[in-house]
Amino acid sequence: MIRLYHAPLSPFCRKIRLSLAEKRLEVELVEERYWERDADFMRRNPAGKVPVLKMDGKLLAESAAICEYIEEQFPTPSLMPQAPEARYEVRRLVSWFDDKFHHEVTSKLLYERVNKKITKAGYPDSTNVKAGAKAIKFHIDYMAWLLDQRRWLAGDVMTLADFAAAAHFSALDYISDVDWNRSPTVKDWYAKIKSRPAFRSILVDQVSGFPPPQHYADLDF
Amino acid sequence: MIRLYHAPLSPFCRKIRLSLAEKRLEVELVEERYWERDADFMRRNPAGKVPVLKMDGKLLAESAAICEYIEEQFPTPSLMPQAPEARYEVRRLVSWFDDKFHHEVTSKLLYERVNKKITKAGYPDSTNVKAGAKAIKFHIDYMAWLLDQRRWLAGDVMTLADFAAAAHFSALDYISDVDWNRSPTVKDWYAKIKSRPAFRSILVDQVSGFPPPQHYADLDF
Repeated sequence: MIRLYHAPLSPFCRKIRLSLAEKRLEVELVEERYWERDADFMRRNPAGKVPVLKMDGKLLAESAAICEYIEEQFPTPSLMPQAPEARYEVRRLVSWFDDKFHHEVTSKLLYERVNKKITKAGYPDSTNVKAGAKAIKFHIDYMAWLLDQRRWLAGDVMTLADFAAAAHFSALDYISDVDWNRSPTVKDWYAKIKSRPAFRSILVDQVSGFPPPQHYADLDF
Repeated sequence: MIRLYHAPLSPFCRKIRLSLAEKRLEVELVEERYWERDADFMRRNPAGKVPVLKMDGKLLAESAAICEYIEEQFPTPSLMPQAPEARYEVRRLVSWFDDKFHHEVTSKLLYERVNKKITKAGYPDSTNVKAGAKAIKFHIDYMAWLLDQRRWLAGDVMTLADFAAAAHFSALDYISDVDWNRSPTVKDWYAKIKSRPAFRSILVDQVSGFPPPQHYADLDF
């Protein structure tokens, strides 16, 4: 049995949930109050953060390393192309979203609005929220530019890059922080990915104190 | 010809330089004043940061994606093991250093002491410097614990994980921020890696206004 210690809105956890679901691997989800850093959790991952995946009796941390491991152990259906150039582009975009987008957008919107309240770390910093709301526009435009040339973000097949991006966007959509009117191209991309069976578990997530807006789970948003 | 747009003390650039040198791939180094974000540079990498590698006529960004690409295109000598579990451990540790160590140590010591001055971004924040000096002790202890069980960080062969770690440590050693007396095990590991031919270009780096200490290039430090 595969077990994922996770937080429902964590984009890094969602990326792994999407990968597992796409490969039809069943996973037991265990919600982790990671900010309390209790001894059991710190033993599972000395880095003190989610996701932590329990698989084949081992505990795995770091979402990028976990996703590559899942891919190598369960190569079908594939989320990574075969050619080195195409694999590079997937990995570049995964880093783009998990590093740059995370820093400029997710941490400034989701973490300010939701994580701070859940972890009792104070009130949202409005300077950060404004910066995040501004930065997401640049990122949507960049995605629209990519998607004008390709069917999916990294090329003509769906890859881990799409799941990395969709993990962030779905978490932000949960708090209505994505303006889907900015780009019909990006909206179409999200509609395609949202309607995949792999997305179902993401769409029924509920975070106490933060009910999702109606459009969140709606495939025709 | 391979060209690397880089900054001499950037651990992400150094990791790539080490990988290329280990594989005996010649590279032309072009120092990039990335903080000026001039138009040419932003065209090379819309993320606005180094490293950017020019290879096979293409411009590549994001050091993790670049290193995997180099590995796939030039698999010998190998910096990645073959078994998925072993590959996972390499990638986990690369993320550990490039994400956690970078955030807790490198950004708080090197960026405060050196980058801020070079980019004219103000004075070192002493709270950050203190936090970085404290955090590096924890990381050295963690490495010593790993190296008590293994010859190299991720297992019994040298991998990209060692280069990722050595890239950070060498940059911090340039400003004398590594206490080599804390762990003979970690010191031995660094002495082994420092004496490799691949390390030579790193040891002759010079940053204007910041002369390296004498022990920096000394193989018997």
